[in-house]
Amino acid sequence: MTDTQQLGERAQAMIDALATISADEGKLTRLYLSGEHKRAANLVGEWMRRAGLAVRMDAAATMHGLLPAGRDGPRSGKRLLIGSHIDTVVDAGKYDGNLGVIAGIIAVDELRARGVALPFELEVLAFGDEEGVRYPKTMISSSTIAGTVEANVLELTDAQGMTMRAALAEFGADPSHLTAEAYDPADVIGYLEVHIEQGPVLDQAGEALAVVSAIAGQTRFRASVRGEAGHAGTVPMAIRHDALAGAAEMISLIEAVGRRGAKASLVATVGEIRARPGASNVIPGLVEFSIDVRAADDATRNAAAAEIRQGAQQIAVRRGLVFGMETVHENGVAVAAPRLKRAIAGAITDVTGKTPRELMSGAGHDGQAMTKLTDIGMIFVRSRAGISHSPLEFTSAADMGLAVAALMRTIERIAGENA
Amino acid sequence: MTDTQQLGERAQAMIDALATISADEGKLTRLYLSGEHKRAANLVGEWMRRAGLAVRMDAAATMHGLLPAGRDGPRSGKRLLIGSHIDTVVDAGKYDGNLGVIAGIIAVDELRARGVALPFELEVLAFGDEEGVRYPKTMISSSTIAGTVEANVLELTDAQGMTMRAALAEFGADPSHLTAEAYDPADVIGYLEVHIEQGPVLDQAGEALAVVSAIAGQTRFRASVRGEAGHAGTVPMAIRHDALAGAAEMISLIEAVGRRGAKASLVATVGEIRARPGASNVIPGLVEFSIDVRAADDATRNAAAAEIRQGAQQIAVRRGLVFGMETVHENGVAVAAPRLKRAIAGAITDVTGKTPRELMSGAGHDGQAMTKLTDIGMIFVRSRAGISHSPLEFTSAADMGLAVAALMRTIERIAGENA
Repeated sequence: MTDTQQLGERAQAMIDALATISADEGKLTRLYLSGEHKRAANLVGEWMRRAGLAVRMDAAATMHGLLPAGRDGPRSGKRLLIGSHIDTVVDAGKYDGNLGVIAGIIAVDELRARGVALPFELEVLAFGDEEGVRYPKTMISSSTIAGTVEANVLELTDAQGMTMRAALAEFGADPSHLTAEAYDPADVIGYLEVHIEQGPVLDQAGEALAVVSAIAGQTRFRASVRGEAGHAGTVPMAIRHDALAGAAEMISLIEAVGRRGAKASLVATVGEIRARPGASNVIPGLVEFSIDVRAADDATRNAAAAEIRQGAQQIAVRRGLVFGMETVHENGVAVAAPRLKRAIAGAITDVTGKTPRELMSGAGHDGQAMTKLTDIGMIFVRSRAGISHSPLEFTSAADMGLAVAALMRTIERIAGENA
Repeated sequence: MTDTQQLGERAQAMIDALATISADEGKLTRLYLSGEHKRAANLVGEWMRRAGLAVRMDAAATMHGLLPAGRDGPRSGKRLLIGSHIDTVVDAGKYDGNLGVIAGIIAVDELRARGVALPFELEVLAFGDEEGVRYPKTMISSSTIAGTVEANVLELTDAQGMTMRAALAEFGADPSHLTAEAYDPADVIGYLEVHIEQGPVLDQAGEALAVVSAIAGQTRFRASVRGEAGHAGTVPMAIRHDALAGAAEMISLIEAVGRRGAKASLVATVGEIRARPGASNVIPGLVEFSIDVRAADDATRNAAAAEIRQGAQQIAVRRGLVFGMETVHENGVAVAAPRLKRAIAGAITDVTGKTPRELMSGAGHDGQAMTKLTDIGMIFVRSRAGISHSPLEFTSAADMGLAVAALMRTIERIAGENA
């Protein structure tokens, strides 16, 4: 049995070291292709080298650390990928993404140190763009490996007008090589990622680890309700076309639709709302709000979106309002491969002594991009109170140790199947 | 019978002349004690002088134009006041307030020109602060006459940090005299005001004029709903404490309470709303919104506010949210005096041949301040589509002519009672 306590302390020290690399004094902010990203990538590269890995940076600024296969077998040359991301949101927590990269490095280093001979290569990937904060696209680095990135992303500009092409060149990467980085699916066994849950389920259940069943499909809409503005004192209730009163009824509908889909992990959220003109003494004439719908299967998500659209439309007609609902973002569900889920579940049972639960990931992850290349499997680690994207994000060293141990056992179990 | 067409054309010309005096090129903005206010006050003063009135500016920058009584009778020295305001909101319409001052000047001038001898003095008042845009108080000028203003208003500051004391001095008024401007109730017969309806009722009914029954009591609340922010993808619906979903249910309740009170002209409006943190992928943890409740009687308004508070509290408890509701502004109802309503209704019937309807004013007016001094009576004039506080505000010259004629007849009817 691995000393998970020691693994956890090692992960904790690395988490803390990475967390000092930030654009902002006193809080953690590390955007794609920034100076902080470069320093973090260098530190990760240094850790990879010390773990005995062959290190390279690719055209999208992803750090790769490769451990050759332990012996020549029938599957030699094939590669098992382990990854996550080292960019963060503004004023971030220090576990999101970073833990997955660190867990990969420690796991590979431990396996190598213990002389475990694997029938495949292991490669740790430290992606630089999962959060999508700097450029109006997300998961560019994992999409590069998966071969789905298009060269025109290089022309995307950040808030300062700097193209991604210029930022990559400044970073020291070779943007001209971007679309040549795609892996051949035939060379890859699968992709594993350790990530904090970013939700409250494990914390409330008192469990450290879970197997991810799927990364939710997501549709984001921008809705608008147009009514008639008017004086809050002079327009009788009976002849109003109050856009906010209509929007309120729609928000209740959206919540009800979400609640009915609990079995398919359906969630429906209105996070943003604006009422115009927005004065206490004026009946709102225009309300705009966001709708975020996610589910563990695409049929459930699409049915929920249709139900919301139809119901809101009926509310609008009854109230003499004009309703619009435009899709601004859509991702299909990314289902974890059964064979990797089995390996992970077995590994977690080996490490914790308990059969883990399966959880849908409501948040997006690099695994979504990687499903275009290969099978994916994910291990979720308990986050205190489910808080994420906040300095209050917290995962204990003990849980991180269990996660690293489970990742190691997962690799060994896959090796057993592939021997 | 007065030639109302001619009165209307005269009013139209004066409305248009005043509307050119603005802080903004191409739109009408005239704030209290601004250079524009000064120019408008000077023009009004000039009109008053030409109408044969004795003109003075008081310590709150109100222009007064006084017509002495026509004969010495038992009531000599008593005064009937006619007023409205010449300040505007930002990007205003040109009728709101201005029409009441102009109607007063024309009416007094016509009565004087026609040699109508009145048993009381007539005084036209052009107030400068009804809209309350520049300083965080409203109706300062009418409250000064009514004797309810307090000296500490002079220390209020505008957005540029200028005190009202300094602005009054710059305007040419004498702030040290502010609290000495109060009229003695024993010297005043009543206060009349012509004002556009600012609501759609007369336009929809196809009627030009109405008698105002009361200026609605108003309470404005700031409500807050505190829940728990969380990731829109990772927190299952069943364990959410979504502040916006809760607020939506409360907004529906507020609308329902308002609808049930139609008989007492109850209106309840949520005009402003803010959700925090306000991102499409984050469950709102805090929502703040405004609640504006108005009614033709204080009991109805207070009962509605209590019902809203109690209902919202129940919604909050059921959802595990924390609800707060703080009063930020409150005005009791200002009821028009029956004798002045009778005079106005008779005058409107004289002028239009039809018995007018009574309307509550949902908007605030200087009459609210003047009820502290004397009886009030108001004439409402049709506004196209009820639009106000907008360049689209429109009242026809014909309707303005009818309003001036009705104001003249009202004065004559009051004179008849007081003869």
